[in-house]
Amino acid sequence: MRSHTEYLTFKTQRHREFINITGQVETALAKSGVREGMILVSAMHITAGVWVNDAEDGLLADIDEWLEKLAPFRRDYRHHHTGESNGDSHLKSLLVHHQVIVPVTDGRLDLGPWQQVYYAEFDGQRSKRLIIKVMGE
Amino acid sequence: MRSHTEYLTFKTQRHREFINITGQVETALAKSGVREGMILVSAMHITAGVWVNDAEDGLLADIDEWLEKLAPFRRDYRHHHTGESNGDSHLKSLLVHHQVIVPVTDGRLDLGPWQQVYYAEFDGQRSKRLIIKVMGE
Amino acid sequence: MRSHTEYLTFKTQRHREFINITGQVETALAKSGVREGMILVSAMHITAGVWVNDAEDGLLADIDEWLEKLAPFRRDYRHHHTGESNGDSHLKSLLVHHQVIVPVTDGRLDLGPWQQVYYAEFDGQRSKRLIIKVMGE
Repeated sequence: MRSHTEYLTFKTQRHREFINITGQVETALAKSGVREGMILVSAMHITAGVWVNDAEDGLLADIDEWLEKLAPFRRDYRHHHTGESNGDSHLKSLLVHHQVIVPVTDGRLDLGPWQQVYYAEFDGQRSKRLIIKVMGE
Repeated sequence: MRSHTEYLTFKTQRHREFINITGQVETALAKSGVREGMILVSAMHITAGVWVNDAEDGLLADIDEWLEKLAPFRRDYRHHHTGESNGDSHLKSLLVHHQVIVPVTDGRLDLGPWQQVYYAEFDGQRSKRLIIKVMGE
Repeated sequence: MRSHTEYLTFKTQRHREFINITGQVETALAKSGVREGMILVSAMHITAGVWVNDAEDGLLADIDEWLEKLAPFRRDYRHHHTGESNGDSHLKSLLVHHQVIVPVTDGRLDLGPWQQVYYAEFDGQRSKRLIIKVMGE
């Protein structure tokens, strides 16, 4: 089994931001030399997510509004007794999940026609890491 | 490492439909010859999901009603400016996630007693693909 | 490829309970001898979840309250016609997902500073199983 590991670091300008990282996942695959296998793309912080969906700005704004409705910012989360104010960011991360697996076939990302890999920052403006781990042969 | 890849195509009769694909995952495993490893089962479209849960019709109807409540059809999603009308299908896909990993032990799906693999179509009546990728030894 | 499989059994005292299992995942990794690869941590029952997030009691209470709001206990789920009363436990499991992949680098869990692996019991007081499967080299 061959494996290759990379870390991306994000420091977004806005508190919430959704970033298409499909190109970086492709670059990691190219370096790995893997032809058959899978790539784990996983946020290393607990207030961020990773998803696979459409690269369409209207949809991204819909997702943002929808997440705020289902997991809203509130002053009175118990978590805030620790001095944090990001309780909603944790809930948003749980809701969309923090990782995906991208299959690799014939040396390429085996994604459908509209599938793009997104890093979802829910508590930005500070350095956050993500791991890309390619495994296969 | 041994690997085996299959693609399933669905064209459901209804707009939303939940299909038990455990048998097809077992068939892919049998073809692969893998005895120890894992199977990635992943929707290749961004308006479909994959989950592991119970094969019980009442529960499936409960899930459908619940998803419509949390991620409802609405006319006014920004995504619809593209000409689409399936904004809610994207949100439902994000909510349930689009993939699962099924562990393989001693040449069989290592699922619990009630675990069944489901393909969840949220925008059907057209051809949609799913990848099954078996990896192991 | 090297692989190692373990099963944990939980019988929680309360109906809902969230248990930090990071230590057990580390123990399984140590037994496996794997230095590069991944660990699948997956609930084997359909009324439980697995997530990676913070080990902070206030947040865990926030998560519990939030899940009850998004996927509430109700008497009238169709699933209850089977004699069960745990419809909400299935929905909570779907919402948080039932599994995670933990990356392994240099023989250790490659988690971020605050990432901890949790087993989330949504229908406890009976024996439930979880699989830990380490794969790599």
